Amino acid sequence: MNRYCVIMCGGVGSRFWPFSRTDRPKQFLDFFGTGRSLLQLTVERISSIVPPENIVLVTNRLYEPLIREQLPEIRQENILLEPARRNTAPCICWAANHIAALNPDAAIVTLPSDHLVLKEREFEAAILEGFDFVEKDDRLLTLGINPTNPNTGYGYIQQGTKVKGWQGIRKVKSFTEKPNREMAELFLKSGEFFWNSGMFLWSAKSILKAFDKYAPNIGNLFHAPDGIYGSAEEAAFIEKNFPNAQGISIDYAIMEKADNVYVKTVDLGWSDLGTWHALYEASPHNSDGNVTQNCKVLPTDCQGSIFATSSDKVIVVKGLKDYIVADSENALLIYPLEEEQKIRQIVNEIKSRFGDNFV
Amino acid sequence: MNRYCVIMCGGVGSRFWPFSRTDRPKQFLDFFGTGRSLLQLTVERISSIVPPENIVLVTNRLYEPLIREQLPEIRQENILLEPARRNTAPCICWAANHIAALNPDAAIVTLPSDHLVLKEREFEAAILEGFDFVEKDDRLLTLGINPTNPNTGYGYIQQGTKVKGWQGIRKVKSFTEKPNREMAELFLKSGEFFWNSGMFLWSAKSILKAFDKYAPNIGNLFHAPDGIYGSAEEAAFIEKNFPNAQGISIDYAIMEKADNVYVKTVDLGWSDLGTWHALYEASPHNSDGNVTQNCKVLPTDCQGSIFATSSDKVIVVKGLKDYIVADSENALLIYPLEEEQKIRQIVNEIKSRFGDNFV
Repeated sequence: MNRYCVIMCGGVGSRFWPFSRTDRPKQFLDFFGTGRSLLQLTVERISSIVPPENIVLVTNRLYEPLIREQLPEIRQENILLEPARRNTAPCICWAANHIAALNPDAAIVTLPSDHLVLKEREFEAAILEGFDFVEKDDRLLTLGINPTNPNTGYGYIQQGTKVKGWQGIRKVKSFTEKPNREMAELFLKSGEFFWNSGMFLWSAKSILKAFDKYAPNIGNLFHAPDGIYGSAEEAAFIEKNFPNAQGISIDYAIMEKADNVYVKTVDLGWSDLGTWHALYEASPHNSDGNVTQNCKVLPTDCQGSIFATSSDKVIVVKGLKDYIVADSENALLIYPLEEEQKIRQIVNEIKSRFGDNFV
Repeated sequence: MNRYCVIMCGGVGSRFWPFSRTDRPKQFLDFFGTGRSLLQLTVERISSIVPPENIVLVTNRLYEPLIREQLPEIRQENILLEPARRNTAPCICWAANHIAALNPDAAIVTLPSDHLVLKEREFEAAILEGFDFVEKDDRLLTLGINPTNPNTGYGYIQQGTKVKGWQGIRKVKSFTEKPNREMAELFLKSGEFFWNSGMFLWSAKSILKAFDKYAPNIGNLFHAPDGIYGSAEEAAFIEKNFPNAQGISIDYAIMEKADNVYVKTVDLGWSDLGTWHALYEASPHNSDGNVTQNCKVLPTDCQGSIFATSSDKVIVVKGLKDYIVADSENALLIYPLEEEQKIRQIVNEIKSRFGDNFV
C-alpha cells in the first residue's frame, strides 16, 4: 500500500476557549457528545482508505499523552512530535520527508484533525479519486467547498479549466488566503471561488519538489542525510532543525505560489468548526434558534444563542440574544456571538492576569 | 451562667440557588471568601457573650455532618436534630423546652445562622442589654433594623412608647409579617416602623408561657414528662411529636399576637442575605456597580450585576445589565436580578426535570 495519511493535530484552538484549553485543545474534545473526539472521528473516517500503519500524526509534544490515550491503535513511530509550534508548512514538510524515506512512491492525504465532515461516503469517494489523481502525475490537489458566506477566515480557490477525464476536478486559477471582506464578497458573488478545506492530496515526491521550488528555506531545513528519517536519529535531527523553520501555513508557503495546483469540489457536510459561529451553524437549532451543546439548559427569552458546558451541568438563563454561553472547568464565557473574534485577545489577557491555569 | 444562645440552622436557602444547595445550604457556605461559613461567623459572634456549652444549634438532621465538620467545639448534646422541616416556631419551642429543663432560669438569645452582621461591637452591646432587659421581667424582645426600602419579605415592627431606663427599647405597637407592597411603602414613609431582624431575646419561662397562651397547639406538643428533655429519651419524644407540629414562623405564631413584645432598635450593619439583591446591596461595588463575589471576572459593558462563583474560576462576560451570574458545581444561573423571585420556582422545575442532583 502506497497510500498514507498525515493528520495535523498540534493546534491550540484558542478561539474555542474556554472549551478548548492549552492542555486539551479542540481536536481532543468530544464536541458533539458522541463519545469520540474530533481527532478520533478523523482517524475513523480515513481508516477505511488508509490502514493504521500508514497513518502519521503530527502534533506538539505536549499532546503525546492525549494521543496515546485516544488513539492506542496508532504505533509510536507514527506519531511525529514537533518541538515547537510552526504552523502547517514545516509540519507537512517533515511528514512528507518522513514518509518518503519509508516509501518513495507514497501518496499522501493531509487532513486537519478538528473539522466536521457529515457525509462520510462522499468523503471516502473524494479521497479515493484524489489519490488516483495525484498518483498519475505531479499534481497538488485540494478539496474545495462551495462557499455559503463571505467568510474572511478561509482560503479562497478560484477554479480554472476542467481536467479531462476527472469528474469535478479543475485547475486552480488563483489561490487567495484570508481575503478582506470586500474581496470575499466579490469572490462569493462571482460563483468561481471555493473555500479551501485544508484537506490536501499529493505524492510525497510532488510536495517535496514544491517545497524545494517555492519554500526552499523550509525545504532545505528538512533535507537529511540518508538513513536519518525513520531511524532513531530522526528525533535529534528534528530537535535541531525544526525550531529554525519559519512559522507559515502551507497555503502561503506553497498553494498560493505553485502552478500545479488543482481543486476537487466536494459537498461533504463540512465545517472547519473554526469559530463558535461555525459550531452554531453546524449544530441543530431549536425553534428559538438556540443551540444546546451537550448540556441541560432552561432558557427563557433567549434566541440565536449557543449553550455549551459539560453534559452533567444545568444552565438556567434568561434574556440573552445571539450569545455564547460556554462553561468549562475553571472558566465561564458569556459573550456576544458576533464579537467572538475578540476571544483570542481575551485569552491572552486572562493568561497574563490570572495565569496559565485558566487558558 | 444562665445565658443561652439558640442558633437556627436548618434552612434550605433555595432562593440562593445555585450557590445554596439542598445538601449544603447558604448557612454552611463561605459567602464572602473569609474562610468561615455564615454559621461559623454567627457562632464566633456570640461566643464572647455565651460560652460554647450554652450554645444550642437546631438544624435538620440532614446537616449533622456539616455541623460536626464546621463546629467541632459544639458538643453533640447541644445539637438538636429536627426530624422534619416545620419553620421557626416548633424549632424555638423545642429549644426553649430543652434549655428550660437544664436551667429553669435560662435567658435565651435566638439567632438565625445565615445573616450578615458587620458591626460586632454594637451587636455585642445590644445582646448584653437585651439579656438584662428580658431577665428583669416577662418580656419578649426583638432587635429592629431601620428600614431602607419597602421590602415585602420582612416583618415590620411598629414602635410604641419608650421603656423608661432602657436606651432604644420601646414597646411594640404592632407587628406585621410580610406586608404587601402598598403597606410596606406606608410603613417606610411613616418612620415608625422597623424591620424585624429575626434575632430574639427572652427567658425560657416567658417564651414557653407565650407558646401556651398564643400557640397552644405547638406548646402542648412539646410538653414532656419530667426527665425527658436532656435525657436519652428526648430524641424518641421529638421523633414522635415534632412532625405533628404545624409549620409556622415564630412571627405569625407568637410575635404578631403577644402583648409583651418589645423592640430594641439597632444599627448592626445587618443584612439577612435573603436574596441575591440583598447580597448585592451588602457587598462592595466597583465603579460600574458590579459586585464580584469571591471570583475572577473580566466584565465588559456590564453594570449593576453580581458575579459569583468559586474563587478558582474566571468569568469573561460582556453586555449584561442588572444580572445575576452565579456558577456553582453542576449549575449555572444567568438571570435578571429583578426577577430573582422566580428562582424558587425554577429550582422546583430543575428538580422535576433533571433530578435532585442539581438543586
